[in-house]
Order: sequence, then C-alpha cells, then structure tokens
Amino acid sequence: MPPSMADSRPLAQRLLDGDRRALARAISLVENEQPEGYAIVREVYPHTGGAAIFGLTGPPGVGKSTLIAALTKARRAQGRTVAVLSIDPSSPFTHGAVLGDRIRLTEHFLDPGVFIRSMANRGALGGLSEAALQTALLLDASGKDDVFLETVGVGQAEVDIIDHADTVVLALMPGSGDSIQALKAGVMEIPDVIVVNKMDHPLIETMVREIRGVLSLAPHVKGAWRVPIVKTEATRGEGVDELVQRLDEHRAFIEAEGTLGERRRRNLRNEVLGLAATRLRKRLEEGLDEDADFAALLDEVVARRLDPASAAAALLEKTGADV
Amino acid sequence: MPPSMADSRPLAQRLLDGDRRALARAISLVENEQPEGYAIVREVYPHTGGAAIFGLTGPPGVGKSTLIAALTKARRAQGRTVAVLSIDPSSPFTHGAVLGDRIRLTEHFLDPGVFIRSMANRGALGGLSEAALQTALLLDASGKDDVFLETVGVGQAEVDIIDHADTVVLALMPGSGDSIQALKAGVMEIPDVIVVNKMDHPLIETMVREIRGVLSLAPHVKGAWRVPIVKTEATRGEGVDELVQRLDEHRAFIEAEGTLGERRRRNLRNEVLGLAATRLRKRLEEGLDEDADFAALLDEVVARRLDPASAAAALLEKTGADV
Repeated sequence: MPPSMADSRPLAQRLLDGDRRALARAISLVENEQPEGYAIVREVYPHTGGAAIFGLTGPPGVGKSTLIAALTKARRAQGRTVAVLSIDPSSPFTHGAVLGDRIRLTEHFLDPGVFIRSMANRGALGGLSEAALQTALLLDASGKDDVFLETVGVGQAEVDIIDHADTVVLALMPGSGDSIQALKAGVMEIPDVIVVNKMDHPLIETMVREIRGVLSLAPHVKGAWRVPIVKTEATRGEGVDELVQRLDEHRAFIEAEGTLGERRRRNLRNEVLGLAATRLRKRLEEGLDEDADFAALLDEVVARRLDPASAAAALLEKTGADV
Repeated sequence: MPPSMADSRPLAQRLLDGDRRALARAISLVENEQPEGYAIVREVYPHTGGAAIFGLTGPPGVGKSTLIAALTKARRAQGRTVAVLSIDPSSPFTHGAVLGDRIRLTEHFLDPGVFIRSMANRGALGGLSEAALQTALLLDASGKDDVFLETVGVGQAEVDIIDHADTVVLALMPGSGDSIQALKAGVMEIPDVIVVNKMDHPLIETMVREIRGVLSLAPHVKGAWRVPIVKTEATRGEGVDELVQRLDEHRAFIEAEGTLGERRRRNLRNEVLGLAATRLRKRLEEGLDEDADFAALLDEVVARRLDPASAAAALLEKTGADV
C-alpha cells in the first residue's frame, strides 16, 4: 500500500511494519503521556530486543550531534537501519546553536532507513527519562538495527537514560577537563568506549594521554573489556570508521561473554523501578501546590514549628501511601 | 561543666548548647538512619534558620576543599563560627587525593568555633541527600553562624543538596570547559557567585572572559543580582577576602530584597517533597531483590512478554501503593 494512502490498521501494527508516521505518532502519544501511548508500547514490546542500543553522552559542545550524524551515515553504508533519539537540554540561551548542530542530520531526513527524533527536557527529569525509555522501545520495535540515544551528561546527570544502552559511549574533546576530573574522582562512571572529538585541536594528544592516565588507574580485571579511545573529527567524518569498528567489537564482546543478557536484565530492572518510583512521586506531587493542607503544612515548616522530615511523613500519611 | 565530664542532659539540649560531641553523635544517628536522629532533628528544628547557608559546588579538582578551608579561616577572623559539611564523591581510585586536600582543614580541628564533617556518597543518591539535609539542620541548630555545604557538582548532580543553600557558589578553574559549556547550554543553573580558583594559571583571564561571555547571554532583569566572578588562589588565601565580601553582599541583597524568605520557602518545599519521594522509593525497593514475585515479574520483562511500564504498574499495585 503506498504511504500516501490512509492505513486503517492499528497504529501498533503499522509501527511494527516500519511505518514512519505510525512511529512518529506513537512517540508523540508517549511523550504527551497519553494512555494510548503506553498501550502501544505494551503491544509492541514482545517485538523489542532486536536492536543494538547505543548511548552517547558527554558534556555540551563536544559535537555529539555531529558524531551521531557521522555514525548514522557509516551505519547506513553498512546497510543497517538507524534510529536516533536526542535528549535536548533545556536551553534558555542557545537553542539556536543546538538546532544548528542538528542540521547535519538533515541529509538523512529523506532516507527511509533513518528515523530521527529529539525530545526536550521538560522540567521533571523523571518524566523525560520515562518518555525517552518508552520511545527507545518503540524505536527498537519499529525494526531499526541500531538505536542511538544521545544525551547531555556531565557527572551523574541523565544517567538513567544512558543506563538503558547496551554500549555506552562517552564523547569528550580537548578542554573537557571537568569530565576527566569527574572520571578520575569516580563521580562519572567509566563508559565502554571513549571518543575524543575535534582531533584537529592542538591539545588532542594531551587529552588522549590524560584519558589513558585515568583509565590506567582503574583496576583491570583479566578478560574484562578494555575501554578504547577513538579520535574523531566528526564534521569531516574522520575516525568514524574506527569508532564504528570499536562499537561492533564491544557488541561482539558482550554477546560472546554473555554480559549483554546480564546488562539488559539489570537495565530492565532499573527501568521498572525507575518507572514505579516516578509514578509514585508524580501521584504524590499531583495537585499539591493547590492543596490547602499542604500549604498549611509548609507554613508550619517555614515557621520552623514542624521539621521537614515530619512534614514529609505527614504528607505521606495524608496521601495514604502505605507502600 | 568541663567538656571532659560526662553530660547527662539529652543530646538535643547539649547540641543546642553547642556541645561538639553531641553534634557529632547526632549527625552519626542521622547518617545511619536511626529513628533517634530524626527525633533530634525534630526537637532542634525550631532553633534552626539562624545560620547563613552557603552551598559550594563545582567539578572535582578545582580546589573546593582548599577554598572552604580559606573561607573558614577568613570567617573565623571576622569572629564568625563555621560548620562545614563536605559531600564526598564515591571514589574508587583517588580517595587519597581527596583526603589530602582535606588536610588543609586540619588547622581548624582544635578550634571550638569550627565544626567539620564529611559524608560519603553511599550508593543511593536519595539517601545521601536526605542525610546531608538533616545534618545541615543540625549544624544550623548548633548555633554556627555560617554553614558551608560542599558538594561535587557537574551538571545537575547533587543539585538537591545545593538547593538547600541561601547562596550558591560555583567554583571553576582554567580548564573547566565542560562546566562553561553546561552553563551556556542551560544544563547547569547560574549560581549566585562564581569563583575561579588557581589564578596563577596562564589561562585564568581567558576563563574569566568565557564566564563573562556566558553570563552576558542571560537576560538581565533590572534590579536583579549581578553574578560576580572572583579570582582566587585558595592555597595562598589570595582573593578570599574579596570572595567573603561578595558572599556578604549577596546575603545583604537577598535579605533586603526579601528573596531570602522566598528562597527558603521554596527550598523547604523541595526538601519536604524530596524526603517524601525518597521514602516512597525506599519502601518500594525494600526487600525487592529477595522478593520472588518481583523476580518473576522481572523474568517476564526480560523475556519480552511484559513491558516495563506494565511491570511497574503491577509492582505498585502489589505493594498497595495508592498514593
């Protein structure tokens, strides 16, 4: 059936058949927290698990979007289909610049083998990560071979989204001193692959050396994965083939080791708990700011008559939370 | 009564009277989540609100501990009493280095006007921030004029602890490119005061210029606080007097504007909600990994027969959470 004709089959079925508009529509439903969105995820879930999920994180400005565009091109050349989900930081100032970066993805807009979506950080972190994880499942179910989850991460931020990935890639650049320090101090977790973008920068080798230094501090377990460092200049596509190779090697490694299954079990466990906790919190906060009892409780706290922990206990009791 | 004699009065009373050992003991109770700890916080809470609460955050390695030591010295010279709560990142590698930094605080160990405590990041972020916020109340109640909360922050990490402060100070250094990008992209919130440590570094002026550039992008509201940038070399105490002056100016500003009251109300609201949400999550997760029903639920998810959101709903129903 030509795509221009109306398709009367259920959305979930069309999504599974690779219909882009069905996929886009389903994501919007999830993003807007529509019950129909969850129903679709439920329906297509048995068809997930086939995609390789890559998480790309790193501080703003290192060129993550450009890297994703270059990776997409390389994957398409390998005959693989690609889905990209970009989690945008809420940017009061430079939204233009972020969008500018994204323009490099436009060359793929007409390619049916590529699906790109970005999602804005909408206040509550919990809400965004819930929508992002549900979206990742939809992208997986739509039959894409690779799903790239791109998110700004400095320190522990947005960790739960990246935690959904089979392979975690950290993108840095010369000047990413804070991230190096965070890795060194153990504040940031060691990823599976490190890419240092902007390889034309005069300080690229210093940066690579610093990263090597940090990685060498980690106790090496025999037979464990050795984190590769790949230099790229994503705007020109340089180093991207090597990066793709490292991603494939990591995947082959976790498949051979059987750790892919373990990772996914752990990720799914965290996802279930995260979803449950987010819902609990949402129900707790719903309507709270218009609630006269809560306002009275807060007045007592502000007047230093009732301590925050007792107020929290009173709030939980009032809402009848007996978990 | 000399401090060497046993004091039979209740812990809370001794804490309010400024007894250091009582304070240390109360903090340990809170840290170990003992009900007695919460009871003490409840009892002393009416005596809180007197301290000026400063939050100092920034990437690892910028010299936050050294800055705190220098600030402590300067505050003592002004005749003010000081409490410091350092939130340590969980560091698998460089715990020695972090402790090395902390040694600079030892000169204050015998000063009865200074109380120093550090708290380790113990897995669950929620648990740590709860203990830290309760501890901040104890420090406040013990009669210290200034309470410094020091925490590693890159991006949104540990935000809830810093959110408890009246004045938020961000410490950076030449090389903190990632933090600059995070500020620029709006991923990191603009603090009240920025300090650039390591002023001997050849790139200090470049760094200050970059920060000015980022700050100039923020829409300036007439009459609003202008974020000062202070250069320091904390190891030699240079620039610390200016930093102290800016902190005092910020405090005078929020007091005059009446925004201190607003801030505290907002902070306390977030604290109550945060505590309630953490408790909900804790109750939800308690014993879950030993729970056969949860294991069976997770098996279904892993086998792709039950989607994560439905599993989360089933989990909430099973635990009887009807918030």
